[in-house]
Amino acid sequence: MSRDIRRLSVRKRNGEELSEDELRWIVEAYTAGEIDDAPMAAWLMAVCCAGMTDAETWVLTDAMARSGELLDLSGLSRPTVDKHSTGGVGDKVTLVAAPIAAACGACVAKMSGRGLGHTGGTIDKLEAIPGLQTAIEPQRFMRQAEEIGLVVAAQSDRLAPADGKIYALRDATGTVDSRPLIASSIMSKKIAAGAAAIILDVTVGSGAFMEHQDEARALAELMVGIGERAGRRTVALLTDMNEPLGRAVGNAIEVEEAVAVLGGGGPADTREVATAVAAWMLVMSGVERSIAGARETVDAAIDGGGALESLRSMVEAQGGDVGALDRPLLGHRPTARGEFEVRRSGVITRLDARKVGYAALASGAGRRRKGDSVDPAAGLRLLRKEGDEVASGDVIAEVGASSDRHLDDAVRELREAVTIGDEQPPSRQLVLGVVGAEEIG
Amino acid sequence: MSRDIRRLSVRKRNGEELSEDELRWIVEAYTAGEIDDAPMAAWLMAVCCAGMTDAETWVLTDAMARSGELLDLSGLSRPTVDKHSTGGVGDKVTLVAAPIAAACGACVAKMSGRGLGHTGGTIDKLEAIPGLQTAIEPQRFMRQAEEIGLVVAAQSDRLAPADGKIYALRDATGTVDSRPLIASSIMSKKIAAGAAAIILDVTVGSGAFMEHQDEARALAELMVGIGERAGRRTVALLTDMNEPLGRAVGNAIEVEEAVAVLGGGGPADTREVATAVAAWMLVMSGVERSIAGARETVDAAIDGGGALESLRSMVEAQGGDVGALDRPLLGHRPTARGEFEVRRSGVITRLDARKVGYAALASGAGRRRKGDSVDPAAGLRLLRKEGDEVASGDVIAEVGASSDRHLDDAVRELREAVTIGDEQPPSRQLVLGVVGAEEIG
Repeated sequence: MSRDIRRLSVRKRNGEELSEDELRWIVEAYTAGEIDDAPMAAWLMAVCCAGMTDAETWVLTDAMARSGELLDLSGLSRPTVDKHSTGGVGDKVTLVAAPIAAACGACVAKMSGRGLGHTGGTIDKLEAIPGLQTAIEPQRFMRQAEEIGLVVAAQSDRLAPADGKIYALRDATGTVDSRPLIASSIMSKKIAAGAAAIILDVTVGSGAFMEHQDEARALAELMVGIGERAGRRTVALLTDMNEPLGRAVGNAIEVEEAVAVLGGGGPADTREVATAVAAWMLVMSGVERSIAGARETVDAAIDGGGALESLRSMVEAQGGDVGALDRPLLGHRPTARGEFEVRRSGVITRLDARKVGYAALASGAGRRRKGDSVDPAAGLRLLRKEGDEVASGDVIAEVGASSDRHLDDAVRELREAVTIGDEQPPSRQLVLGVVGAEEIG
Repeated sequence: MSRDIRRLSVRKRNGEELSEDELRWIVEAYTAGEIDDAPMAAWLMAVCCAGMTDAETWVLTDAMARSGELLDLSGLSRPTVDKHSTGGVGDKVTLVAAPIAAACGACVAKMSGRGLGHTGGTIDKLEAIPGLQTAIEPQRFMRQAEEIGLVVAAQSDRLAPADGKIYALRDATGTVDSRPLIASSIMSKKIAAGAAAIILDVTVGSGAFMEHQDEARALAELMVGIGERAGRRTVALLTDMNEPLGRAVGNAIEVEEAVAVLGGGGPADTREVATAVAAWMLVMSGVERSIAGARETVDAAIDGGGALESLRSMVEAQGGDVGALDRPLLGHRPTARGEFEVRRSGVITRLDARKVGYAALASGAGRRRKGDSVDPAAGLRLLRKEGDEVASGDVIAEVGASSDRHLDDAVRELREAVTIGDEQPPSRQLVLGVVGAEEIG
């Protein structure tokens, strides 16, 4: 094996498969600071250009997972299940699906991330709940998981530290967009986080990382293969992200929508995707045998109030103000408020998820750079969505923003996001396909 | 245009052509420290993978040339000509061809480099002449060029500083091997160095950067195109570098061989390549009209002593001990001396240039890393070469080394370099072709 990163970069770009020892050495040496950023960046670009075999991708993922602690959830009495989304706009699926799954007997002990750019992150949304803590020590994490079956903590630096370091370098060097690098980044964290089953929500469309369904499917297949190889029951749902999910985009406002869905209301699209994910969480964790049965159990958990109660228990256990869940915007008040009116009559033919994400970012709800703070009160409420008829002057969105300037910027971005035409746009499926778990009906 | 290096890396790896403004910005911003090493390394790897159009390569080269001073040699009374080799083993062509060209009426005012790895550098060789200075201030450089028509100085940091910084990064990141990056590196320095004509010696074979003639020809065509576009009369000779050139490999020992060739003796192969290069220097600078005429002039300069006298004048002008040119090894004495004997009888079928270069490096004559010092006295004298018959026990090389350990290492490397068989190897042409200057016979 070679221990010269330059030589390994040359071999990779010439299309050679690197050995297991070589790949493990790269991950270990880079994490330990023995390989500098510049040669590592060149190697990552060589991977972007020449790709990796599935065998290489597996080794890379496993090495990254083993670069730090491996959480052991096997001592918990309930079957464990994790869930991950490749990111979207208005994506509050975790906030709905995880409490449902916990209410139905699974244990969801998971780490989540923060938002970046046009996509939101579950941790930012949870932190909009006054008092709620997301930095949770391992012992407390395990105790909460055992006691209420639901804990959502901020991604720990101790899990897959190689991924943290490599991801930061990819972000800085234009080497993000590579299927094996994306798959290894996501799956190394999921494997290290210890759940026995993994549900992947692979979003597709303008607001997602993958614009095309074939790319998303290929990524899903790669990740499911890695999960299975790691001994985790893994399935991926391909879901549409051309239009924002639901009507709320922001932090407090998305929690508000999640609470509504858990209470049996809320937008139909949010409920459809979140309950599909929840049903798969129940099946893959072994709580339910079939998707049909799981769907009934999920509906019953919503109707019976157990799902919402599960979220309340988690909020309480993590120090949050449970009463805030009943208040509009969790009790937050945006500094500036405004409305977005359309300037012509017709039908909304396009409500571009990415551009709505930029509008939410402009309002103050998101972060442009890692480390920026987010405004929990900022965000958008979409009163109309694709297919809705509008008349010139109709308000189709309410905007809460961090300042008047943020408000103006958000409204300007929203204008880019909306297209009004004369004919109904074709309707879209929300769940586009399922990858993995072929034996389950 | 984009001023986000990450975005430019992504576009490059997707096979897009970058704009002139974008490429100039990359060179300027990296040289100014506004682009970090890691994203620049990723961009360089994207270029290695996806290539560049000729138009892009020209802009890159021109931007690198303009990153520092542009020498103006137009005030000199003689026609100026520069010469560059892509590197070899035993390559003392500059030491022979430049004095010949100067003796025949051209002005050779050039910058040269130091050796690295298995290849030597003209500056290291010249510095083996006691007292000789290669760090020459611009004013003195111009005066010497005007007065004796010959000056060889160490590459100035003020010329094409972008190339210096980019080359160091390429060396550290496995992004050396890219035709547009090689061409722009070489030609940016040649353009900045100001000569009106440029002769490129593009070596081919095991001891060269390019192993195959088609690669070397493609590089030569690219560089000739760049030179012509910069308004310089440019030609490239493709020369064989499978076997070391001549019989001397080292520093003082190569100067000794150059002096022998300038005096009308020395190995035939060194004379053949060096006089071919010198003849092209005369033609491209306009001193001669035809290669045939130039060859006669070159031979006369050797036979009449003018060529050697030109070298002596340069050595004197640069503070060197002219008398040393008449002493074996310029008066140096290697710390350790040894001989290399063959262990079987037959014919030398292979004397691998790269491996002989490694032997010279091991002897102390070369540097493994930039900044290492070289031993002027160390090196090899090849008593037999490919095609020569040998009997077991024959000494085929003498080795001078920096220590007994260096000597052992050099002899061990030499054993790898030599293959003895039973049949004569096919004979090789030394000058394999000429690229450019098609109008000249």
